[in-house]
Amino acid sequence: MTRTTNPTMTIPTYADVLIAHERIKPYIHKTPVLTSRFLNELTGAELFFKCENLQKAAAFKVRGACNAVFGLSEEKAKIGVATHSSGNHALSLSYAAGQRGIAATVVMPRTAPQAKKDAVIGYGGTIVECEPSTSSREAVFEQVVAKSGADFVHPYNDPRVIAGQATCSKELIDQVDNLDIVIAPIGGGGMISGTCLTLSTIAPDVKIYAAEPLNADDAARSFRAGYIIADDAPNTVADGLKVPLKDLTWHFVKNHVTDILTATEDEIVAAMKLVWLRMKLVIEPSSAVTLATILKNPELFKGKRVGIIITGGNVDLDKLPWMNN
Amino acid sequence: MTRTTNPTMTIPTYADVLIAHERIKPYIHKTPVLTSRFLNELTGAELFFKCENLQKAAAFKVRGACNAVFGLSEEKAKIGVATHSSGNHALSLSYAAGQRGIAATVVMPRTAPQAKKDAVIGYGGTIVECEPSTSSREAVFEQVVAKSGADFVHPYNDPRVIAGQATCSKELIDQVDNLDIVIAPIGGGGMISGTCLTLSTIAPDVKIYAAEPLNADDAARSFRAGYIIADDAPNTVADGLKVPLKDLTWHFVKNHVTDILTATEDEIVAAMKLVWLRMKLVIEPSSAVTLATILKNPELFKGKRVGIIITGGNVDLDKLPWMNN
Repeated sequence: MTRTTNPTMTIPTYADVLIAHERIKPYIHKTPVLTSRFLNELTGAELFFKCENLQKAAAFKVRGACNAVFGLSEEKAKIGVATHSSGNHALSLSYAAGQRGIAATVVMPRTAPQAKKDAVIGYGGTIVECEPSTSSREAVFEQVVAKSGADFVHPYNDPRVIAGQATCSKELIDQVDNLDIVIAPIGGGGMISGTCLTLSTIAPDVKIYAAEPLNADDAARSFRAGYIIADDAPNTVADGLKVPLKDLTWHFVKNHVTDILTATEDEIVAAMKLVWLRMKLVIEPSSAVTLATILKNPELFKGKRVGIIITGGNVDLDKLPWMNN
Repeated sequence: MTRTTNPTMTIPTYADVLIAHERIKPYIHKTPVLTSRFLNELTGAELFFKCENLQKAAAFKVRGACNAVFGLSEEKAKIGVATHSSGNHALSLSYAAGQRGIAATVVMPRTAPQAKKDAVIGYGGTIVECEPSTSSREAVFEQVVAKSGADFVHPYNDPRVIAGQATCSKELIDQVDNLDIVIAPIGGGGMISGTCLTLSTIAPDVKIYAAEPLNADDAARSFRAGYIIADDAPNTVADGLKVPLKDLTWHFVKNHVTDILTATEDEIVAAMKLVWLRMKLVIEPSSAVTLATILKNPELFKGKRVGIIITGGNVDLDKLPWMNN
């Protein structure tokens, strides 16, 4: 575990979110909000699914990536961008860089789903592989940046990225009236931080919950402890949620999140399959943790209007977690 | 093969479509139209996917079923409705009957996907099983109706059903400007007939293509022969498209369809997987036949604005056709 403080960090404001939204609009979808009577009856809540699986590159992460890439000066853009990522940020940065016509290098764990690797390459990005641990990822990445001088777009601990992700809940508030709660998955905390930034400004009465795999519950433990606890290489089917909080995302989590709920691997897979079956949406395991925690804690959500951020849809269709192969 | 003529059949008009749309609006979704830059680039066309997989009961068939059920007199409604169906009409009629609070009995092949059987029961319908052939289905059904006196809502050869299905392309024309082509799968021809009815009235310049599995190409052969050819129990992964044309749907097909294109089983499965992978939508094999035929006949669609009816999303998630199990 690590105690992290950084007195010099730049905290994005809602003005940054407004600028981000104008900047990225040509490159992103305003994703639809879908509902399911079946899931409403099952949970006793009114659920509004903000479908970032239908986003460009099939993940909310294009919002932050586009904000970073299109905010670069011409001079900096020419050198290109680089990142490390468990997957969706990798392909989102590749997409954003491709849209601007600049180079993107991404360090990815060799165990990342093949579909995500294929998508990075499809968008024109270059992959450098590392071992599936935070320490290996950071070490390999340092070498990449030292060599190229590329602008580092961190997957979440970057004010440009958080301001970009914050446009998602800005749209949601525009699309659905009178929400009581918004819940989103938490890994490094980029989406949750963006959600906190937007809601604390334009809808301060809305409660914010974060949902996390029990197998990678470092954020929940951090929340209870009052300081960042980081695990190296947790093992969960929700491969987008393995990374730890960092100082910038911790700032938002500790100040604005009501609680962090957890779900087991079986609960996550069951919730994922339920969304595929009843909503006809391909969502990735990381996106199912929210519904899994709602099903597990019905008393918190019953009778409430709940926005659920479906964060992405990148799944290896040949290796579905409910199949034994 | 059979030659069918029926001088007394009732052909629905566009006035019936307008009445149907008002009648069924409280019970259906106006489904979204989604696009994919990847698939546009792959085909050289502009594709607009009308997503009836996101419809109630995950199939366009609720449109026709609701129109039939909610058009019944109080007296007739009390006796209930019955049908035979390869799946989606079965669960759609169960949904519609459930919404009105009346009984629905459905004759289904014992080989129908378990997910569809479960959904019928979930909506409150009663299943009577038959063998997977048209002849067995019709024989078992006659017994059911003789016993109950229920109103027979044919899955497609019924003017109420065709007028209901016609509301789908009415919405599509409202959602997308300047379409050149609309393409839909063809089994018994209910969706295609509804499409013909609407487009020939409000958008007569739009060409209508039908897409069919090569393994169940009775409609394509009928189209070339000039009379209905019916196969008993064809075998295809597109389980919604096994049934033959009947006199009412043949009327629309022969008068308004530009051509009927076919695709092999492998082409259908590949197109289905492509939509899951790139659009993050769960669509059933029957819904993938359209894209399969577009990929096979690019010269017909290149440079065109093409509406594609995604007819349904009911799939057994434990038995995906690209997996060997």
